[in-house]
Amino acid sequence: MTAQQLDDSGRLRHLLTLEGLPRDTPVGRVGNKRHVLGGSAVCTLFFEPSTRTRSSFHLAAQRLGADVLNFDASTSSTRKGETACDTLKNLEAMGVRGFVVRHPDDGAVAALAAVAGEGTALVNAGDGRSSHPTQGLLDMLTLRQAKGPDFSKMKVVIVGDVKHSRVARTDLHALRTLGVGEIRVCGPQSLLPDDDTLKGCVVGDDFDAMLEGVDALMMLRLQRERMEEGLVPSLEQYHAQYGLNTARLARAGKDAAVLHPGPINRGVEVTDEVADGPQSWVLRQVANGVAVRMAVLETLLG
Amino acid sequence: MTAQQLDDSGRLRHLLTLEGLPRDTPVGRVGNKRHVLGGSAVCTLFFEPSTRTRSSFHLAAQRLGADVLNFDASTSSTRKGETACDTLKNLEAMGVRGFVVRHPDDGAVAALAAVAGEGTALVNAGDGRSSHPTQGLLDMLTLRQAKGPDFSKMKVVIVGDVKHSRVARTDLHALRTLGVGEIRVCGPQSLLPDDDTLKGCVVGDDFDAMLEGVDALMMLRLQRERMEEGLVPSLEQYHAQYGLNTARLARAGKDAAVLHPGPINRGVEVTDEVADGPQSWVLRQVANGVAVRMAVLETLLG
Amino acid sequence: MTAQQLDDSGRLRHLLTLEGLPRDTPVGRVGNKRHVLGGSAVCTLFFEPSTRTRSSFHLAAQRLGADVLNFDASTSSTRKGETACDTLKNLEAMGVRGFVVRHPDDGAVAALAAVAGEGTALVNAGDGRSSHPTQGLLDMLTLRQAKGPDFSKMKVVIVGDVKHSRVARTDLHALRTLGVGEIRVCGPQSLLPDDDTLKGCVVGDDFDAMLEGVDALMMLRLQRERMEEGLVPSLEQYHAQYGLNTARLARAGKDAAVLHPGPINRGVEVTDEVADGPQSWVLRQVANGVAVRMAVLETLLG
Repeated sequence: MTAQQLDDSGRLRHLLTLEGLPRDTPVGRVGNKRHVLGGSAVCTLFFEPSTRTRSSFHLAAQRLGADVLNFDASTSSTRKGETACDTLKNLEAMGVRGFVVRHPDDGAVAALAAVAGEGTALVNAGDGRSSHPTQGLLDMLTLRQAKGPDFSKMKVVIVGDVKHSRVARTDLHALRTLGVGEIRVCGPQSLLPDDDTLKGCVVGDDFDAMLEGVDALMMLRLQRERMEEGLVPSLEQYHAQYGLNTARLARAGKDAAVLHPGPINRGVEVTDEVADGPQSWVLRQVANGVAVRMAVLETLLG
Repeated sequence: MTAQQLDDSGRLRHLLTLEGLPRDTPVGRVGNKRHVLGGSAVCTLFFEPSTRTRSSFHLAAQRLGADVLNFDASTSSTRKGETACDTLKNLEAMGVRGFVVRHPDDGAVAALAAVAGEGTALVNAGDGRSSHPTQGLLDMLTLRQAKGPDFSKMKVVIVGDVKHSRVARTDLHALRTLGVGEIRVCGPQSLLPDDDTLKGCVVGDDFDAMLEGVDALMMLRLQRERMEEGLVPSLEQYHAQYGLNTARLARAGKDAAVLHPGPINRGVEVTDEVADGPQSWVLRQVANGVAVRMAVLETLLG
Repeated sequence: MTAQQLDDSGRLRHLLTLEGLPRDTPVGRVGNKRHVLGGSAVCTLFFEPSTRTRSSFHLAAQRLGADVLNFDASTSSTRKGETACDTLKNLEAMGVRGFVVRHPDDGAVAALAAVAGEGTALVNAGDGRSSHPTQGLLDMLTLRQAKGPDFSKMKVVIVGDVKHSRVARTDLHALRTLGVGEIRVCGPQSLLPDDDTLKGCVVGDDFDAMLEGVDALMMLRLQRERMEEGLVPSLEQYHAQYGLNTARLARAGKDAAVLHPGPINRGVEVTDEVADGPQSWVLRQVANGVAVRMAVLETLLG
């Protein structure tokens, strides 16, 4: 996939994954650039609902002057038996140049990129459990704003349901690419992957022990279906073991940054005090999301 | 709330309610002003569906050159347990400056305005049973166009389900602020409020008696659930007692203006003859709605 | 209806049907013309869902610089009992100038055009079983690109569920207007109309026999509900008798063009080899759809 998203001169053609993406891949600079995409059509093509991510891309594309088309593939002709590939090829024939694609299956966006025509660019807005590259980019930008440009001295802990999280896998790729000093991963055994996803990480299930001296905490969202699946006994117990409150945060490194991809389950992953406190970078992540998506769209389509 | 929506110099900061809003609050002048909001993002944030009101605001914001984002909060991450407040703060972090908010609960929009950041403006597009300020403004503009600028000589009757109507409460505030000569309120006892909403109004349940000499009739929509709740025996009986037909309209003042917030239940609140007749101002209300919303958005964001 | 869509000087005022539309009706020329509709509001008003057709019109209107409003009439106040006519008049009062209307009932769009005000234009985006004029126009444009401007020498076969197809009826009107040499119609008896729709056509149910020497094949989509209605025994049997595969295509005229209005049921109406093969004009139809809709919108509103 890495090869597929870069052209022969190393220029980004699609953005499918951060896995293997070179550290120095050129990406456009952030700014309020009306008309960069004036007259270009960008389609948000979502095979799985996500109002928030869609809105972030929608605003980013509008701010670059693009015509934006929302195509909700879960309520459209895909229901009439059309394949995802035909949906893409049709919208491409209608003149859409950029596609922002969310899909429940791993690799689905890369498969669509493989059939896309010359001049068409795809951005993976999250597929399966593996990839959500713009989330990774915005998380790294936020870490840099919070902790400075030297990632090699940084200690980061990722907390929660790593097993089912494309955010975690994406951040792991990005943190390794940036040469982060130490990556810790913490969560209940039932929510940690048993493959080589965590290679090189310090792994454990005792949150209090894993907190000491970290510069940043990347809290993952706990999907409620994990309860129904029996992977987590209860929200209360999860919060007691893995919830971030002010007492725990005090044990982390000085001014440790708290990140969360949203939407937050308040009182589960983090308490209100932490979510709204001075060490929370959550809304900065959201703001960075639009900036990063503008930069990606400009790089691919500008 | 009045204090909250005005800044120290009396300038409108949010529009939350007409209750207590000074008569001479400055509001932008109507016009076709492309680029007034060029590059600004406006979000329609609806926690309760209303395609018509949303469309009116959407067209108003587009006509001012804004980027418009529709955020349907009933099918989004709010379902994933996110609070309305977090939804607002997230969209604000994405760069949205103006929010048009509809919510089923009284005071919900004011509560959101209380947490909004500097530079963010909210317009209440209807919340609970209490407030729908742009409807009140467009109704007053329509009354003025129909009957001239001297409200002190005007007799107005409000007819129907006042108890559950934010339109009625809003119009009552506006009519009082403008010093309307006489306000009559008419409907079945089961649909009239028993608190001090109707203070100073002439109240009665005999429509024919209440019609005499009025300059304007503000007909309220009858929600079908009032039947299921047993508050109204049947549509037929409601129409017989409170439906406006040409015979009844002839009994009102000369050229009395007929208003209805829409959508009309034809044959229930008004007959086809009246709805489409020369004394109907219903479509003028709709046109005024876009003009008023443009003026409000320009005042708050321009 | 023909009279209704032309004004006294023969200029197109609405586009409701191709039936009886003169061959030389002037329509704007295709091009990338930003600002032609700058500041005009166009509403896609769909009383029946069709994401694909709606998207095509949406992109066409955006490319002309229009403000586009999607009004999904199946989930809006029409559900609250509002008539289609009131919905139209309301949106018109809000300043919408162009309406793209899809409706399940025959003649519904013409009925709406009859009540529309001066200066408002309607485009029929498909109603009932009778009319889908922009589909007809894009099909004719595609035929011309594929087979040249002399329609009089062309042999065309329409295949499938003609009985329930507005595409077929529309194409029949257009093919006759253009003086196509021979029109063949092929499908199971249960899916062929028994009125005078097929007057002048060569009709038969043996696909292999009807293929010989045709210049173009217009394959119709098979709705799955035809199975439930007992009109077709099974998809497999339909495909065996009326599915277009490479073997059959070889029996048609040299370089015969394959058209399909989409979305394709792959393996039912056509095989993958044919759909993606060199004789498929399906994606060109889609591209032509946007161009034709731009031309129509410019003609009606520019």
